[in-house]
Amino acid sequence: MNSQFVVGIDVGGQTTKMGVVDARGTVLAQTVIRTDTHHEVEKYIAEVGEALRKIIAEAGAEGNIRGIGVGAPNANYYTGTIENAVNLVWGGTQSIPFAKLLSEEMGGLPVSLTNDANAAAVGEMTYGAARGMKNFIMITLGTGVGSGIVINGEVVYGHDGFAGELGHVTAVRNNGRACNCGKTGCLEAYASATGVARTAREWLELSDEPSLLRGLDTISSKDVYEAASEGDKLALKIFEFTGNMLGRTFADFIAFSSPEAIVLFGGLARAKEFLTQPILDGMNNNVLSLWKNKVELVYSQLKESDAAILGASALAWEL
Amino acid sequence: MNSQFVVGIDVGGQTTKMGVVDARGTVLAQTVIRTDTHHEVEKYIAEVGEALRKIIAEAGAEGNIRGIGVGAPNANYYTGTIENAVNLVWGGTQSIPFAKLLSEEMGGLPVSLTNDANAAAVGEMTYGAARGMKNFIMITLGTGVGSGIVINGEVVYGHDGFAGELGHVTAVRNNGRACNCGKTGCLEAYASATGVARTAREWLELSDEPSLLRGLDTISSKDVYEAASEGDKLALKIFEFTGNMLGRTFADFIAFSSPEAIVLFGGLARAKEFLTQPILDGMNNNVLSLWKNKVELVYSQLKESDAAILGASALAWEL
Repeated sequence: MNSQFVVGIDVGGQTTKMGVVDARGTVLAQTVIRTDTHHEVEKYIAEVGEALRKIIAEAGAEGNIRGIGVGAPNANYYTGTIENAVNLVWGGTQSIPFAKLLSEEMGGLPVSLTNDANAAAVGEMTYGAARGMKNFIMITLGTGVGSGIVINGEVVYGHDGFAGELGHVTAVRNNGRACNCGKTGCLEAYASATGVARTAREWLELSDEPSLLRGLDTISSKDVYEAASEGDKLALKIFEFTGNMLGRTFADFIAFSSPEAIVLFGGLARAKEFLTQPILDGMNNNVLSLWKNKVELVYSQLKESDAAILGASALAWEL
Repeated sequence: MNSQFVVGIDVGGQTTKMGVVDARGTVLAQTVIRTDTHHEVEKYIAEVGEALRKIIAEAGAEGNIRGIGVGAPNANYYTGTIENAVNLVWGGTQSIPFAKLLSEEMGGLPVSLTNDANAAAVGEMTYGAARGMKNFIMITLGTGVGSGIVINGEVVYGHDGFAGELGHVTAVRNNGRACNCGKTGCLEAYASATGVARTAREWLELSDEPSLLRGLDTISSKDVYEAASEGDKLALKIFEFTGNMLGRTFADFIAFSSPEAIVLFGGLARAKEFLTQPILDGMNNNVLSLWKNKVELVYSQLKESDAAILGASALAWEL
């Protein structure tokens, strides 16, 4: 029987994870290479190809690969290109024909490309918490805030292939924080892992409230999480603030596409014990009454180590 | 030849407009009745039926009607019901099986129902400024602010049939104006015809800047428009404020669905000479750089007197 496996590749700024996946969502073989070793994309692609051939052999899947799905920053689904990806050392300010290059490297296998949050949404719909859902919004809470929007069972790519940049809606209108994207007040500047750490540093500066976070050399969102777990009041307030801001912006997203659920994924989503209630409050206090307490908030059910690969691989089934 | 005509009905709080339309978008016959004469929906539907039979006969379309499209507040496309329409005297807090009642009245003709802004979006796509567009957002600027979102050539109805309530995203987070919906800070409380009049009254109160608007007994958006046309500075600033707020929220909508264009329609859109530049500024200053100066702002091309009927009738072609 032919074409019973797919390959999923998750391209991050530092590492590239890849795996061979079967139709039930089992990752049969996987590996990781560094993304930032080569400054020329051709050399990087050659290394990806080498790694892929190894795990395809390991999974006993030679000649049985239907296609390759890739999740990558600044990826365009329509054109198969990666555009202006400043966080990738071989990205820079150019347009890279990633799907074409990888397909050539892999003997003509079809390659489908989208941004990581869209890939996560497809993964969640195929294997995870959104199975059976036709309308949901995936929000990835990591270093940044990403989103994948599903309407009528299809990922929304928009006119140009770049739809679903909900990390860059304006959450704070006046005196908002500078965001990496060049704007101010973006949701991502507050509700990402880095945003949480920024809030902690700001608030420690602005008050002398006692906190376990005081005196730390550097503060990460993990530190804030651990402090909150020990009952630290300031840390708990930081999650309340962060959750509330997420919930308020979710209310606007609901007015747009009226989803059945909002699905959360990513490192910061692990703090769900502290985030869930503030998110629900922010959301339900800001939606039209017809949606009050109607839209579910759910957390990814994919095993974190496999999720990125599974999400990307799910794209390949559609090829 | 059968079924070459459709009927479009626009249900407003005060009047109900209806017309018989051919495939080229010509309104062959039309009429208006009052919406608010009867408190029982059955009597209202009977009057609609009577009026429809007259114009169908007038258009020579008896036996040749493919279906009826209805645009109405709080209408649900999936269920054919009107829910909690407090602005309709026969609406109240119930769920009215409008499509079913009207179909029965009209001898079993199929009836399709959606809210007025969605109907306008379908109309614009079928006959107007959005012909050939697959991804756009229709914003109706009237007494309120409505929206119809089109993605991949289809109106977005969402999980429950009520998607596209962009008049109720939060445009002002702190100390926002009370909105009719019960929330505060909604776009509709600022960027509708009534919102413009509210801004005028507020600003006249807060300053003693000279203005043609001073001394008027009541102020409508039309008064503000006329004052702006005569170069009144305060009136011009009101449109700048209104346009800017629209543009800023449009920037967030663009991050959601990456449309080709935003299409404006409705009474307030007639002030386009004063609104266009502030909208474009607000929009382009708040989108990610990839969308800067890329998303078109266009105005409805439908003849205003026919637009509501055409929009609703366009739904019926899909039946």
